[in-house]
Amino acid sequence: MLRTGFQVAVILGHHGALPGLTHLLPRFNPASAFGSSMETLVSRFCREMTESKNYALPNASWGPDMLSLYHEFLEKTKTEGWVRLPSFRSNRDHIQGFHLPLMSSANSGKSDWRLFTRCIEREGQGYEYVIFFQPSEKKSICLFQPGPYLEGAPGFAHGGSLAALIDETFSKTAYLSGEGLLTVNFNIRFKNLIPLGSLAVLNVSVEKIEDQKVYLSCVTQSRDQQTVYAKASGTFLQMQLEEDSSQH
Amino acid sequence: MLRTGFQVAVILGHHGALPGLTHLLPRFNPASAFGSSMETLVSRFCREMTESKNYALPNASWGPDMLSLYHEFLEKTKTEGWVRLPSFRSNRDHIQGFHLPLMSSANSGKSDWRLFTRCIEREGQGYEYVIFFQPSEKKSICLFQPGPYLEGAPGFAHGGSLAALIDETFSKTAYLSGEGLLTVNFNIRFKNLIPLGSLAVLNVSVEKIEDQKVYLSCVTQSRDQQTVYAKASGTFLQMQLEEDSSQH
Repeated sequence: MLRTGFQVAVILGHHGALPGLTHLLPRFNPASAFGSSMETLVSRFCREMTESKNYALPNASWGPDMLSLYHEFLEKTKTEGWVRLPSFRSNRDHIQGFHLPLMSSANSGKSDWRLFTRCIEREGQGYEYVIFFQPSEKKSICLFQPGPYLEGAPGFAHGGSLAALIDETFSKTAYLSGEGLLTVNFNIRFKNLIPLGSLAVLNVSVEKIEDQKVYLSCVTQSRDQQTVYAKASGTFLQMQLEEDSSQH
Repeated sequence: MLRTGFQVAVILGHHGALPGLTHLLPRFNPASAFGSSMETLVSRFCREMTESKNYALPNASWGPDMLSLYHEFLEKTKTEGWVRLPSFRSNRDHIQGFHLPLMSSANSGKSDWRLFTRCIEREGQGYEYVIFFQPSEKKSICLFQPGPYLEGAPGFAHGGSLAALIDETFSKTAYLSGEGLLTVNFNIRFKNLIPLGSLAVLNVSVEKIEDQKVYLSCVTQSRDQQTVYAKASGTFLQMQLEEDSSQH
């Protein structure tokens, strides 16, 4: 049942860096596709769901740095157009009623699916993070406090845990800014190690949207901006979600 | 107490892509440093520890593909010089009695530290993987079966979960091949999505060791090699562990 799911994947696989991908996806007419307004995307993505836990809210494990910067940005949601993104257990919760084209069958089956960056339930032990999105400037801030389950070198966050969270913040920003859905490539240069339990701030920007791809960059640094932890870039393929007729 | 820990980090931070880093680390004389034999490194890293759980052993969640390839490589440990790497809860367990230079203070404190790629305890739900290392060819194979807690797109492994495991396999391979310890940069190009529950095989090679850096590449593919999931490269900084006098 995953066969159709792989048609998109096979297209990606056969074309490496994806030159000329556009003509391989004839159903996407650049003149009409990616026409969902950012307002529509944000409202779809940030839907109120009382039945799903929102992991992007403060808990007792958040340190003073994380908390105070959270409240600073929460204030900006009232005055400067920033949007606090909710964070549910799975992307399935965010896109209820929709699915990736050609991938509907991959949704089937029953399991305790979890978004990778929300895989650790215990507060403060794994990923603590919240993303704020600025629609008019197509940028995001992610506040990240890595817990002891994310260790690499003793006492510091694993490089892979930061890479994964940047990829995740990229993906939300790419989707809301221009329906960027699948990571095509990702690069990261590490500058300093992040001490576990401290706050790292991910500053994500959309650099350009071109040829059905969304290009992003990220600088991760300490709150006082005196220490750069990493610089990253990534490219996402644009793709419109389809309404999931099986759920209607 | 983390101040000294950051001296290494600050050096990294101020020099971006690390040109000319050698002269900034005068304590490492290329003529004498990195002289630990691979045998020493492997025996230090793979120390028998009856008190620590080894996560790189089969469990009931491993599918037939993962199991049969595991036994194939286990056979090669007897006949072709491959080494099955044990995998403990934290890197602290692997390097007992040693620490990263200038970072000893980061070891202090009590917490339930876990290596990021072993952060999920429940069998089959998160990372299931085992790494086999081939010393004479400086290469590794990592068998990876992603569980439902590693989800990105519905039904598929999060790109960040694969990136993190490649980084982890790079780091073990870089250390055993030439004392590569800290990730400097990491690049990944995604070709196909990995279905959750299936087997992906990471083929890691050391490309060269030069200027105190270990350069690695990785091709991740299906067992039959018909589907390439991702191609990646990474660079690690060489650094010798120091004996931890506080533990003696």
